[in-house]
Amino acid sequence: MSEEPVTRPVPARRRDTRLDAYAHNYAERTFGMTASAIRALFAVANRPEVVSLAGGMPNISDLPLDVVSSTLSDLVAERGTQAMQYGAGQGEPMIREQICEVMRLEAIQAHPDDVTVSVGSQQGLDLLTRIFCDPGDVVLCEAPSYVGALGVFRAYQCQVSHVAMDEHGLVPEALTEALAAHAAAGRRVKFLYTIPNFHNPAGVTQTLERRERIIEIAQAAGLLVVEDNPYGLLGFDGDPTPAIRSLDADNVVYLGSFSKTFAPGFRIGWVLAPHAVREKLVLAQESATLCPPVFSQFAISAYLSRHDWRGQIKQFREMYRERRDAMLAGLQTHMPAGTTWTRPTGGFFVWVRLPEGLDAQAMLPRAVSARVAYVPGNSFYADGLGSRHMRLSYCFPTPERIIEGTRRLGEVMAHEASLHETFGFLGSGAAGGPYEAPGANQS
Amino acid sequence: MSEEPVTRPVPARRRDTRLDAYAHNYAERTFGMTASAIRALFAVANRPEVVSLAGGMPNISDLPLDVVSSTLSDLVAERGTQAMQYGAGQGEPMIREQICEVMRLEAIQAHPDDVTVSVGSQQGLDLLTRIFCDPGDVVLCEAPSYVGALGVFRAYQCQVSHVAMDEHGLVPEALTEALAAHAAAGRRVKFLYTIPNFHNPAGVTQTLERRERIIEIAQAAGLLVVEDNPYGLLGFDGDPTPAIRSLDADNVVYLGSFSKTFAPGFRIGWVLAPHAVREKLVLAQESATLCPPVFSQFAISAYLSRHDWRGQIKQFREMYRERRDAMLAGLQTHMPAGTTWTRPTGGFFVWVRLPEGLDAQAMLPRAVSARVAYVPGNSFYADGLGSRHMRLSYCFPTPERIIEGTRRLGEVMAHEASLHETFGFLGSGAAGGPYEAPGANQS
Repeated sequence: MSEEPVTRPVPARRRDTRLDAYAHNYAERTFGMTASAIRALFAVANRPEVVSLAGGMPNISDLPLDVVSSTLSDLVAERGTQAMQYGAGQGEPMIREQICEVMRLEAIQAHPDDVTVSVGSQQGLDLLTRIFCDPGDVVLCEAPSYVGALGVFRAYQCQVSHVAMDEHGLVPEALTEALAAHAAAGRRVKFLYTIPNFHNPAGVTQTLERRERIIEIAQAAGLLVVEDNPYGLLGFDGDPTPAIRSLDADNVVYLGSFSKTFAPGFRIGWVLAPHAVREKLVLAQESATLCPPVFSQFAISAYLSRHDWRGQIKQFREMYRERRDAMLAGLQTHMPAGTTWTRPTGGFFVWVRLPEGLDAQAMLPRAVSARVAYVPGNSFYADGLGSRHMRLSYCFPTPERIIEGTRRLGEVMAHEASLHETFGFLGSGAAGGPYEAPGANQS
Repeated sequence: MSEEPVTRPVPARRRDTRLDAYAHNYAERTFGMTASAIRALFAVANRPEVVSLAGGMPNISDLPLDVVSSTLSDLVAERGTQAMQYGAGQGEPMIREQICEVMRLEAIQAHPDDVTVSVGSQQGLDLLTRIFCDPGDVVLCEAPSYVGALGVFRAYQCQVSHVAMDEHGLVPEALTEALAAHAAAGRRVKFLYTIPNFHNPAGVTQTLERRERIIEIAQAAGLLVVEDNPYGLLGFDGDPTPAIRSLDADNVVYLGSFSKTFAPGFRIGWVLAPHAVREKLVLAQESATLCPPVFSQFAISAYLSRHDWRGQIKQFREMYRERRDAMLAGLQTHMPAGTTWTRPTGGFFVWVRLPEGLDAQAMLPRAVSARVAYVPGNSFYADGLGSRHMRLSYCFPTPERIIEGTRRLGEVMAHEASLHETFGFLGSGAAGGPYEAPGANQS
C-alpha cells in the first residue's frame, strides 16, 4: 500500500480517458485541496458490517419527528412565502435572537446584531478565514486540531502552527512561546483557533482558569481568539463551563452550531463577532451565498419556539454519556498493554495513543478488514505528525456496537503488536513526535 | 449627497464608539468588499409605499403551499433522520439525477456524477472562482454583468474585463478582440462568464447561432466558458434555446438554480462541470460547508417527485409575461423622449438607457422620494461605467404597481430632464462610455 492511502483523491471514472484540460489553469490554492481522510473512509466505513468509530455524525434518532413534521407543515402553510424567499445576508432576525438565548447557557451576553448565520459553523470558519487571512499568514491551532478547520486553513493557504495541549486543553505557556517565536521571526499571527469543550479529536476540556489565562495572553498580544464550540452543551457533568467569549467580548469570535444540539441537515451555524468583524462577515456571506438557507432558519426557529429544546439536549446528553461509558469500558477491556486514551466529559470523541511501534495510518486497512474503522491521528495535524494516535468516536453506533468495535480493534492492535515484537517497527511515517496524547490515562 | 451614495457600508450602530481593533488585520481581499447597491437599496425599497423595480426576488405566491406543506410533513415522518443528517459534499444522488432531468429541457445531456450541488448558484460561482482564480487573474464578463458575479470576482481579487453586448447578447467579435488584447499583454484569462438567457441586467438573449460562434472562439482559444442560467426556463416565446453546454460538454461549466423555477429560500443551485473540474469543486465544497443543505435537497427532490413542476413553471412564465407586458406598456406611456430600453423575451429585467445628461445614480434619491426604486446601471460594471443606465425588474410587483412605478419614474425623469435643459449636466460620474445599451429600442 501507498504511504498515504487515505489522502489520495478518488480516482477518475474509467470513462474519462482524456487528461484534465484545465490542469494548468487552477488557482494556486487548489493544489492544496485533497480529499480528507474522513471522506475517503466513509465509503468503506458505511458498509453495515463495519463498526464505524470514524465518523462524527450525531445520533439524531431520538428527535421528535412528529413535532418537526407538524412544525414544518404549519410553517409552510402559515409563512411559506417568507420562509421560501430570499432573506438577509446576515440571517433572519428571529433566529439571531434565539441564538443569543442558546448562548446564554454558556454565560455569553450577546446582541442579535452581532450574530451572522452561516451554512453550518464550517462556513462560519470559512468566511472568517476569508476576511482575515492572506496566503502565508499564520494561524495557531491546538495539536491535534479539527480536520475540517485544517482544510479551511489549507484552502486559504495559511500556515498552521500547532500549540501543545494537555489534559486541560491548550497549554498557556506553549501559546506564549509560539507567539514569541512568530514575533521574533516577523510572522504575523492572524488568530488562535481553539475548541475549548470536549475537543475534536482530543476529547479534553479547558478549565475556566485556563480560559482566563489564554484570554489574558491573547489580550496582551493583540491576538484574536476564534472559539469553536459545537459540543459545549453536550457535557456529561453538570453545567457548561463559561465560554471564552463570556470573558471577553472584544477579542473573541465565537462559532456555534445547531448540528449537534438539533440536526446537521439544515446546515445552520453562526458566528458571534465584534461589530466591525461582523460587518465584514456579512459582506463575505452575501458574496458567497447571497444569504444562508432561509427555510432552514425558519424551520429551526419554529422548532425552538414549539419544542422543549433544552429537554431534548438533556436527553441527547444522557444518550451520549451512555455511549461514552460503553467506549471507555470497551477500551478498558480490549486494548493491549501500552495503549492510553483520554476520558472525555462530553462531546463525541476519545483520543487514543497506540503502543510503541504501532502506526494508526498503516494499521487502518487491516482494521477495516477486521470490520472496524477509525480516523488516524495524522489527519488532525497540518505537519504529518500524529500517526501513533487515532480518533475514536462514540456518537453514532449503539453501545453494544461500540463495545464490539473496541473488541475488533483490540484484536487488530494485539496482532500488530506481536508482529512488531517479531519484526520491528511497522509504521509508514513519522510516529510519535513532540505532540503527545494530551492527558492520556493509562488503561 | 456623496458621489457614491448607494455603495457605502451601512453605518455602525451608535453604541460602537471604539475603532475597529482589527482594521490592520484583515486580508487584502477584504478591502475590496463593499456593500452592494442592491443591499443598501433594500432598506428603503422595502417600505410599502415605494414601488420597487429594484429587487430580483421571484414572485412565489403562486406556489402550491398545500402541496409543499404535506410533502415536507411526509418527508420528515418517513425519512427525517436521513434528511436532517449530514450528507455528501457533492450533494445527494437523487436530486443530482433530477437536476439532469431539468437540464434536458435545454438540450443538455449530463451525468449526475458531474453535478455538484451548491448553496444557490451564487455559491457555485464562488466555488468555481475559488478553484480557478488567483489574485490578478482576468475574468471576461459581459458589459453589463450580474452584480453578484462581480462581487464574487472582486472577493477573489480577479481583474474583470468587460466584453460588449448587443441585442443578441455577447458580441463574438468583441470576445475575439478581448482575447487577443489579453494575450498580447501576457495576461491569462481564466474564463468567460456569460448569462445567455434573459440577461441580468440587460434583458437580452443570445441566439443559437451566436452561442455556436462563442463556443467556436472559446475552443480555439482554450477558454473555459461559465454559463450562468437561472432564468432559462422562464422564456415567454416557445421552447428554450439550447444551452451553450449542450454544444460542448468539455469546455463549458453550467450554473443552474431552483431559485426562480421553485423557490430561493432553500438555497439550492448546482454546477455541471467536466469531471476533473467537478472533483475540485467537491473538495472546495467540503472545505466551505462540509455539505450543501441536506434537508433542502430532500425537500426539493420530494417536491419535484410529487408535483407537476413543469406545469408550475409554465404558470410562472404566464405570470411573468403579464408583468413584462405591463412594464413595457408603462415605459411606452410614461418615459420621456430620448429614453430607450430592451424588450426581454423572458426572465425578470429591462435595461433602460436614460436621455442624454441624466445620471441614474444621481437621480436615485429623488426617485425614492417619489416612491419608486431601481438599480443604477453602474452597479453592473466593474469599471464605474453605466450610470446613464438603470435596471428595472418586473418580477415582484403586481402589473398595476409596475405601471404606477413607471409613471412615477417618468415624472422624476421629466423633471430631471427639464433641470438639465436649464442648468446642464446633472450627473455625478461618467455617463455613457464605450458600453452602450445593448439592443436598445427607441420608445
